[in-house]
Amino acid sequence: MQTPWDHRYAQRTQRMGSSAIRELLKFTELPDIISFAGGLPAPEVFPVQEFKEACVKVLQDFGPQALQYSTTEGYLPLRELIARHTARYGIEVTPENILITSGSQQALDLLGKIFINRGDRILVESPTYLGALQAWNAYGAEYIPVPTDDQGMRTDDLEEALRSGPKFIYVLPNFQNPTGVTMSTTRRKRLVELADRYGVPIIEDDPYGQLRYEGEHLPSVVVLDGEFRGNHDACYLGNVIYLSTFSKILSPGVRLAWVVAPPEVIRKLVQAKQGADLHTATFNQLVAYEVSHGGFLDRHIKLIRKVYGERRDVMLAAMDRSFPSEVDWTHPEGGLFLWATLPEDLDASAVLQDALQQKVAFVPGAPFHPCGGGQNTLRINFSNASPEQIQEGIARLGGVLRAKVPRAALA
Amino acid sequence: MQTPWDHRYAQRTQRMGSSAIRELLKFTELPDIISFAGGLPAPEVFPVQEFKEACVKVLQDFGPQALQYSTTEGYLPLRELIARHTARYGIEVTPENILITSGSQQALDLLGKIFINRGDRILVESPTYLGALQAWNAYGAEYIPVPTDDQGMRTDDLEEALRSGPKFIYVLPNFQNPTGVTMSTTRRKRLVELADRYGVPIIEDDPYGQLRYEGEHLPSVVVLDGEFRGNHDACYLGNVIYLSTFSKILSPGVRLAWVVAPPEVIRKLVQAKQGADLHTATFNQLVAYEVSHGGFLDRHIKLIRKVYGERRDVMLAAMDRSFPSEVDWTHPEGGLFLWATLPEDLDASAVLQDALQQKVAFVPGAPFHPCGGGQNTLRINFSNASPEQIQEGIARLGGVLRAKVPRAALA
Repeated sequence: MQTPWDHRYAQRTQRMGSSAIRELLKFTELPDIISFAGGLPAPEVFPVQEFKEACVKVLQDFGPQALQYSTTEGYLPLRELIARHTARYGIEVTPENILITSGSQQALDLLGKIFINRGDRILVESPTYLGALQAWNAYGAEYIPVPTDDQGMRTDDLEEALRSGPKFIYVLPNFQNPTGVTMSTTRRKRLVELADRYGVPIIEDDPYGQLRYEGEHLPSVVVLDGEFRGNHDACYLGNVIYLSTFSKILSPGVRLAWVVAPPEVIRKLVQAKQGADLHTATFNQLVAYEVSHGGFLDRHIKLIRKVYGERRDVMLAAMDRSFPSEVDWTHPEGGLFLWATLPEDLDASAVLQDALQQKVAFVPGAPFHPCGGGQNTLRINFSNASPEQIQEGIARLGGVLRAKVPRAALA
Repeated sequence: MQTPWDHRYAQRTQRMGSSAIRELLKFTELPDIISFAGGLPAPEVFPVQEFKEACVKVLQDFGPQALQYSTTEGYLPLRELIARHTARYGIEVTPENILITSGSQQALDLLGKIFINRGDRILVESPTYLGALQAWNAYGAEYIPVPTDDQGMRTDDLEEALRSGPKFIYVLPNFQNPTGVTMSTTRRKRLVELADRYGVPIIEDDPYGQLRYEGEHLPSVVVLDGEFRGNHDACYLGNVIYLSTFSKILSPGVRLAWVVAPPEVIRKLVQAKQGADLHTATFNQLVAYEVSHGGFLDRHIKLIRKVYGERRDVMLAAMDRSFPSEVDWTHPEGGLFLWATLPEDLDASAVLQDALQQKVAFVPGAPFHPCGGGQNTLRINFSNASPEQIQEGIARLGGVLRAKVPRAALA
């Protein structure tokens, strides 16, 4: 039915359309489907009891203040807790470097709002996180894709991309969404050097960095940038804005994340956030602080690592058993996802159609490529399904793939 | 200190600067100040005990699902509850007409995102809600101000304004922020007719409509628009998008509000919200539903009306006693604010400087005027301070004003 609104949409909405993939994904949520499509944490590890106790304590201790408006910057003790927490990973900052956001998605939106003019080009890994593209398309961003391999962004190709004048670089160095790949320390250092040489700043998105199941923690790009500059002033950050979140270490449903940035950038983000949602829910910040402080977060992260590490291992073993040898896949050292590459002439959307018949689902990889390509790739989540479901689902998917891999490839 | 981000801000940030007013308002938050500056609900009426019980019940009943990601549209039972609640005020819609947002501020931001191209002109009451200007400035909006009087927007001046081609009309018909004025039914009908004639749609922002302390509820613009079109199909809305919120009837600190719009507009808003914050906090929606259902909301609104009505009466009586006769002020029938007009040559910012010396605060009215003017006006909140504080604060403010009113005016 026609309404007077129909012809009044802004130009930017043309890039916000519902995709074919999104329509297909609706089927992945049917109850009898084993879905590796989403990016959901395992509900089994959510600290429900701790939340219950924290809610009661917060309402007892703070009373009505827990339900009142609060500051845009976020609850100071929570920002202090985040500063202590990130310091354990070498990121030494003060609360004035930290803004609490309503999930990392809001951080991406606000960064787009304060930095992106229509036509600005953002240098991204290809493939990259779909949510960043969704946020920034609305501000008219264009993209300069840099290919990735099993060491992350190919820094050999970076210099040429930097010469074409990007507004900033966007990277997910740890267990990237969608590929699960981790950028090597050598490449991180090269990224820092080249970004400095070309005067292009970096946004480092790190939702999964704490969820490592094997190997050693690699230094964050923001830390390497500090070392590169010989800069140890906690309050100053140079070339890198760093994002992380409570979604993967506590609960995604409370929508709490944070930005680490120079104070002047934080002030701009605060102005943007005032116009966007005034502030992140007071109650959620108080409860998250109450749950997290006193060492709970570190203990809880250990539990998550154990559960997700097992699921990853179960999935990798099941893929070894049942995927045809023509399919390649990544071996993530952490995070929530792995990435499979099919023979070039096989379309992952067609595979998904068949997989849904067999009651198993994944996400085709094409939409993660900002400038096209990747039709033969797919993202598989290993955090949300149980080990038994993973075994069964991968066996089904293996059957679909074996039937799909062209005879030529089998010859 | 210089960072590589300094010269990379988007054009739109030039209109997001921190204002002189905002700097001044920091002083209004000092503990020994009686502040009528904010727009805070009374913490005394927040249902703390009900929230405590609801949090425990929700975590008991839903378990981890209460902490998981959820849909962008919002929790269906909450949208159904909102549909039942708005039906009591004559707004008959279905859940597919409703999007849950992270406060009404986010609704304003998302509406700006899907409708406003740089340079688009929005027809607004002058003065109007500052938060709408903050949200829409970021999308490059310009404004066509229509003067208001004690019956709301002057519809005599509306036709000329409509001829200059606004993208949409933005009105707060009930107990407007900042003036406290209510638009008469005659003018609401005239607005509906003229908007239809010129083919310009309307955004009706109604955060306070349920908080009426005297007189009868007036039909919403969205309802009058339906009657004007002879349209009683619950699922279709015509020319009006309607906004309301839980902030003033339950708690602002949980950040929950809603948009009522035609389904196609809701779909566009959902796409915009996916890029902005994925979804509003799952837990908060479940808890708000648990607190609100079964008749609590209606009982609670009655309590709020009683408390705020008393505070308004105390304030009006105190102003009668101590404000000089050269000052005029509105007599709001509901809401949170009243509006005072000083003699023309008296600047409210200068009065605020003196008022802060006397430990009392308000907001100068100029920033609420999108195209300048209003230096001699001020907004006074009556919901947040206790009756005793209101008496004392207004007595102090009266003293400041009596000292400030020019001798000429006293002659």
